[in-house]
Amino acid sequence: MTIFQKILDGEIPAHVVYEDERVLAFRDIHPAAPVHVLIIPRKPLIDVRAAEEEDALLLGHMILVSREVARREGVLESGYRLVINNGTDAGQEVFHLHLHVMGGARLGGLAG
Amino acid sequence: MTIFQKILDGEIPAHVVYEDERVLAFRDIHPAAPVHVLIIPRKPLIDVRAAEEEDALLLGHMILVSREVARREGVLESGYRLVINNGTDAGQEVFHLHLHVMGGARLGGLAG
Repeated sequence: MTIFQKILDGEIPAHVVYEDERVLAFRDIHPAAPVHVLIIPRKPLIDVRAAEEEDALLLGHMILVSREVARREGVLESGYRLVINNGTDAGQEVFHLHLHVMGGARLGGLAG
Repeated sequence: MTIFQKILDGEIPAHVVYEDERVLAFRDIHPAAPVHVLIIPRKPLIDVRAAEEEDALLLGHMILVSREVARREGVLESGYRLVINNGTDAGQEVFHLHLHVMGGARLGGLAG
């Protein structure tokens, strides 16, 4: 079981920023930017590669939820970056799909 | 008019990797990784903040199309990063929504 599943199950705490019936958003405990929130689906998908065509609406919902997360974290106007890492080369660390929402400063390059 | 709209209109060339009735995918002319493709909607949205709720399925489709792009570019198995920059702090450079698909090497940090 991943650490994100444990957060979904309430077994370990998280600073929740937003939640609804399909997704949970909480602050990253190792932030890479002043604002760094993770949006995860309640459905246990490993990454984008594991999604089905029927998950298109769920994935789109995750993207749209980023706006409410950005608003609540105060970076909607200043701008924010969305990132999804899929697999080894991307540096994915937890194998439950997660969308990074980052802002609060001028961000640098895309690939590190 | 943005450079991406000109690509959509066929006014300037691009190395197209994938296209359908809703999106166009082409190689970034200034790649930040060995594989670097941009997926854009034909609908002229500035960024995620400009999307409507009805665009959820389109946004999800863009995410799912990344798999076919990654397959065609040979990085589906090795993994890939998806990035959407929204606004100034994120470093957005072209004001037509675009999803970066990057892979082909171990990528570094998320915020540059």
